[in-house]
Amino acid sequence: MDVTFDGDRAHGGRQAREQFYDSRGYGRPSDGALELAAVEAAHLLYRGDLDAVRDTRDGARLDFEAFLALDAVSEVDFFVYKDLRDRGFYLSTLTDATDGADFVVYPRGHGPWDDEVAYRVRTVSERADVGAAAVQALARRQETGVLAVVDEESEVSYFEVAEPTVDGSTDHDLSEVSGELLADRVLVSDPPATVHQQAFYGQPLDGEGSAVQLSLVEAAYLAGEGALALTEGDRQAVVDRGRAVEGERFDRRLRVYELLRESGVVPKTGFKFGADFRTYANVESVDDLGHSEYLVRVLPADHDFEPRDLALDVRLAHGVRKEMRFALVGDDIEWLGLTRLTP
Amino acid sequence: MDVTFDGDRAHGGRQAREQFYDSRGYGRPSDGALELAAVEAAHLLYRGDLDAVRDTRDGARLDFEAFLALDAVSEVDFFVYKDLRDRGFYLSTLTDATDGADFVVYPRGHGPWDDEVAYRVRTVSERADVGAAAVQALARRQETGVLAVVDEESEVSYFEVAEPTVDGSTDHDLSEVSGELLADRVLVSDPPATVHQQAFYGQPLDGEGSAVQLSLVEAAYLAGEGALALTEGDRQAVVDRGRAVEGERFDRRLRVYELLRESGVVPKTGFKFGADFRTYANVESVDDLGHSEYLVRVLPADHDFEPRDLALDVRLAHGVRKEMRFALVGDDIEWLGLTRLTP
Repeated sequence: MDVTFDGDRAHGGRQAREQFYDSRGYGRPSDGALELAAVEAAHLLYRGDLDAVRDTRDGARLDFEAFLALDAVSEVDFFVYKDLRDRGFYLSTLTDATDGADFVVYPRGHGPWDDEVAYRVRTVSERADVGAAAVQALARRQETGVLAVVDEESEVSYFEVAEPTVDGSTDHDLSEVSGELLADRVLVSDPPATVHQQAFYGQPLDGEGSAVQLSLVEAAYLAGEGALALTEGDRQAVVDRGRAVEGERFDRRLRVYELLRESGVVPKTGFKFGADFRTYANVESVDDLGHSEYLVRVLPADHDFEPRDLALDVRLAHGVRKEMRFALVGDDIEWLGLTRLTP
Repeated sequence: MDVTFDGDRAHGGRQAREQFYDSRGYGRPSDGALELAAVEAAHLLYRGDLDAVRDTRDGARLDFEAFLALDAVSEVDFFVYKDLRDRGFYLSTLTDATDGADFVVYPRGHGPWDDEVAYRVRTVSERADVGAAAVQALARRQETGVLAVVDEESEVSYFEVAEPTVDGSTDHDLSEVSGELLADRVLVSDPPATVHQQAFYGQPLDGEGSAVQLSLVEAAYLAGEGALALTEGDRQAVVDRGRAVEGERFDRRLRVYELLRESGVVPKTGFKFGADFRTYANVESVDDLGHSEYLVRVLPADHDFEPRDLALDVRLAHGVRKEMRFALVGDDIEWLGLTRLTP
């Protein structure tokens, strides 16, 4: 069988179409013949279904290794394609359904002759950055978006990407309290029980009934809500102090804190988990506190994700039975949720 | 009892010295009287051992909360001091033994009247950066160096800091192989078994005996050792490709890779753990491989650590039963090892 490669796509005739598309879901039929993406031709060569592909640019007959070495053939794509095939999926790339992603993957038992898509997959090397916008694009379709990361040993890790709705049902009325601004927290000397015990702001210095210390983010929020009056200064003094400690990250964290509280969610420090916040969706009382459900990392909207850092965050969250969320802070705040996926 | 504060230190007389130093290890005796650091005075106020301290600058009598609010008093230091006291330790700050750290902590049962030091502790807020040099300074003394991080809920996490010796006993002779440079790896078509099966370079495409793919870092190292000849180009071509993918991080990773291999340690990708490398100290054969012992993150020598990221790395490593190491790459490569400590 003569399958040719033009530098971009591979082409076969009717026999190729019957053998590779009809039976096994490779490529895209066109006018009775078959068009194959480079990655699909590479896989057929790898499996031995094709001995070689003829490069029409120079007449060379390319075996698998020679084909993989061509600039036009991405080995990152190849390793993902191979892994998903090994897992029993049909998948395509020559289809509008990719809509910016690299592959569409069909549910097991379905193929490119159906219309049902299980995953839209974007492939990336562990060492290359992937911009936040690209990850968001994966989340914003009907089909499940998946980031497939190929590591240096050519193993593939899959992350399901979603755009979660973030809300909770925590709701407490707060009367105004008075607090003193320390170097990097605010001390509330005589707090009503609501502040900590019910609404879960701050931390008592010394058990129930004692003074409560608020983080700068909590204090800035409460001051902005009219629930905290400072002995010296105002909300701006707290914000200035926050910026002095951590620069513009403070402003981003504060905006996310405000949004979470307004949404009925309680954010507390995520430090022990390496996150900005751990969040509780429904706090009625500190005595009845369940476990926090999510870890939140706050990022600028134009952040470039390093796959290694994504792997770290998601793995840690999974290890403590929580889910990882990213808050992308620009003019608006947009959410991403990532979880490990075994396709 | 009249204890005064001059804006920097607190001072008491003979009674204070007997009651606070002789019995309970606070402060430093001076000429029959007692000198106290601000943090120690704060703790005595907090415990109620002192009702108030008289500020000699303006005559004000300061209770605990007023004292804590002074600029001279670091609440980060206070929370660490309090936590270590609660854990049953004596600790001092007014002593040359701190040698740049914030506190020296004596072994339980010992105090400032002995000379034995258990820990030298540096305190930091979760939100403030701590430079690599400061962390290294903790590691480079006889006494155990500890980083104490105070989070936004004023809980303290302790990290023991050491400067580990990095070595292993992996040693294999390698003959020269030929490889092809792909987009971001090198394919070795016909490798002798030693390359992967014994010396644990690369990953077979398809089980034993098949072609082996090397990461760019592995390929650059082997080319530099004369063990890999590329079909097109040389070591520099591999390095250029590495830099095209990840910039100057590639050079740092390559230098650490080289040092590890030269030290008899096998580095492989640490991607699944969110690290640069996972390392094996003694690889005789891939069939007998134990678990990797360390995770390595490669950083520039002048890196500013964010405590939250330290917490993340260390926690993840602990969760997979490994230890976390940082390679600081400047003119030389220097190592830091961090582990969680319960003092």
